[in-house]
Amino acid sequence: MKQSDYKKSLALHKKHGGKLEIRSKFKLDNKDDLCLAYTPCVAEVSREIAKNKELAKIYTLKKNTVAIVSDGSAVLGLGNIGPEAAIPVMEGKAVLIKKLAGIDGFPICLDTQDPEEIIKTVRMIAPVFGGINLEDISAPKCFYIESQLQDVGIPIFHDDQHGTSIVVTAALINSAKALKRKISDMKIVICGAGASGTAITKMIHATLQPKDIVVCDSQGIISRSRSDLNPVKMKLLEITNKQNISGSLQDALPDADVFIGVSVGGILKPEMITLMNADPIIFAMANPVPEIMPDLAIKAGASIVGTGRGDFPNQINNVLSYPGVFKGLLSSGLTKLTDDIKLTAAKAIADCVNKPNKNKILPSALDKRVPNEIAKSIYAYKKTKHRIDSK
Amino acid sequence: MKQSDYKKSLALHKKHGGKLEIRSKFKLDNKDDLCLAYTPCVAEVSREIAKNKELAKIYTLKKNTVAIVSDGSAVLGLGNIGPEAAIPVMEGKAVLIKKLAGIDGFPICLDTQDPEEIIKTVRMIAPVFGGINLEDISAPKCFYIESQLQDVGIPIFHDDQHGTSIVVTAALINSAKALKRKISDMKIVICGAGASGTAITKMIHATLQPKDIVVCDSQGIISRSRSDLNPVKMKLLEITNKQNISGSLQDALPDADVFIGVSVGGILKPEMITLMNADPIIFAMANPVPEIMPDLAIKAGASIVGTGRGDFPNQINNVLSYPGVFKGLLSSGLTKLTDDIKLTAAKAIADCVNKPNKNKILPSALDKRVPNEIAKSIYAYKKTKHRIDSK
Repeated sequence: MKQSDYKKSLALHKKHGGKLEIRSKFKLDNKDDLCLAYTPCVAEVSREIAKNKELAKIYTLKKNTVAIVSDGSAVLGLGNIGPEAAIPVMEGKAVLIKKLAGIDGFPICLDTQDPEEIIKTVRMIAPVFGGINLEDISAPKCFYIESQLQDVGIPIFHDDQHGTSIVVTAALINSAKALKRKISDMKIVICGAGASGTAITKMIHATLQPKDIVVCDSQGIISRSRSDLNPVKMKLLEITNKQNISGSLQDALPDADVFIGVSVGGILKPEMITLMNADPIIFAMANPVPEIMPDLAIKAGASIVGTGRGDFPNQINNVLSYPGVFKGLLSSGLTKLTDDIKLTAAKAIADCVNKPNKNKILPSALDKRVPNEIAKSIYAYKKTKHRIDSK
Repeated sequence: MKQSDYKKSLALHKKHGGKLEIRSKFKLDNKDDLCLAYTPCVAEVSREIAKNKELAKIYTLKKNTVAIVSDGSAVLGLGNIGPEAAIPVMEGKAVLIKKLAGIDGFPICLDTQDPEEIIKTVRMIAPVFGGINLEDISAPKCFYIESQLQDVGIPIFHDDQHGTSIVVTAALINSAKALKRKISDMKIVICGAGASGTAITKMIHATLQPKDIVVCDSQGIISRSRSDLNPVKMKLLEITNKQNISGSLQDALPDADVFIGVSVGGILKPEMITLMNADPIIFAMANPVPEIMPDLAIKAGASIVGTGRGDFPNQINNVLSYPGVFKGLLSSGLTKLTDDIKLTAAKAIADCVNKPNKNKILPSALDKRVPNEIAKSIYAYKKTKHRIDSK
């Protein structure tokens, strides 16, 4: 990125006063229009919903609107910058969900970083929204917030967990296809045990059943010999590190087939790749600087390299996931995001690439087919499930 | 209104899935656009706001977006219908503020009717908004909520109080002009002591100084002899009922020049008008059925009749006020709504009618000049005040 592009972005945001506007889908040119959109006729719509509040999903913006909720505690690579500074990022996510999936996203940036207050506020504002997209809330409180909101009656999607894990799962499915290997034979090392690393671990374990997963945090391998693990990390041990190895990231890599980095730039050195099994798969997703630059990884023996960046092949970007997942959930009337739905979404993303190869494991971030295919497959899943459940 | 219009409104709401959509003001056709609207360039905007959060009013939707907040406890004439059923009405208000003043309004319908929870939630979501429009929250808690939110750093407008009182003040100014009478000579009877009646009383007293105001609630005249008055009504006695009369609405009318009704349909009988001074002014604003129908009032001797309805002359409609007031406040950077600003707005509305006459005391509800004139006069007020303050 050039310095001039940053200035251009700043000038555009100032010119437009942010990125979003709220518009009417009704015309309003005369008194007759006013009577239909507002008083007195709107009273009839209100009376219908007062009889059955579920009808808000048919007659109001709740049908197609998602809150994009952040407390500004973990925004992009910028860290804890607070709610006001998070607004431009959340507006960007709203712009994308509209562009890609036709869904209306509205940023809710909260003047609190207390988990209980965040939960309470989301509950209070839920009547207007069809879904909640939690964004850029720091770990581990993000897990607690998401889990406490499961009964709110509309789907809760936590992008750092669910978005990232769905896209990484899709990337892994297509990498295995491109290399004609089986995921069940693979040992996977995941570097980073925040929201994304934890969710990727859980989802890959539950849906792809690899040979083993070893997770590393900033202190090294998450193993039974560690005494400094929080409850979330303790729980990861139930599904990872079968051989109970311990030590540093370097100690995790021998015999590994896949490296998935959601940690910090430059942490994976070329000589560490040479410790892995032949032709490993490297997803180096730290932003803006990946755990290893693609050219160095290839030179060190990697067969496939993916990053979070759009200026290299194989961009692994959350934007492939949340627009389509919300489109699918809202159009199907599903109120909970399950492992089955996440896997359905990951497979739909993977299927958007006709013949995956080393330089093309995922569709491009702005490919409009993707949200459509995800939504269609979630809708099909719901119909099948409904058929099975009602037998 | 015909029954078919109610059905048509319902069908339109279903077809569109509510009335509002959220759209991007940035184009997003390729990766370059994505870089400017979202990562990586958006980080620069976030960094600037992180240094000075006031810049959110320049670089984000906060510049031009107002929350339309309701708990659904007193919606239109429908009463306590809850937050979901309030959504279509709040969407209607958002449609109007966009159409008339170019301001983005977003409905926030709350899953609580507890004043403390409402206050807390508004505080939590305030970072995203440039102003708060409290709507259809029942009295007396609406007064408390509005007063407790004064320190939130953005303007708080309570439509039932401020919107109604501004428009009634404008209507009274032009009625006096049309009839060539002085407001300082008038005795005014206000029927209804909820949010609107209380606010009208306070504003007319503070800005127009009539001879006397007498307020009636459902139990009759608010007088010193009553023992059933809540604190809000007790306080009204400081500025009303100079002669300390008591009794029913009927007892308040002799010597009165103006009747302002914000109560229930049909309460003002023709024979009650004959008790008033000659050629009285009648504002019968109960919805959808006025305190007295215009033809009956005229026949009983009224000189000017206004109602809340669009199908009679002299519609006294809040929509004349809030779009322009928010436009003025947001463009001036004023964070509090004072009596001076409310009077400025009322005068601007009144001035939009060139030569007021009995059948034309207010501009029409969809007249786009009105919000512009209000905004201009608030801006001018701010500049004058700034000049005086800095002397």
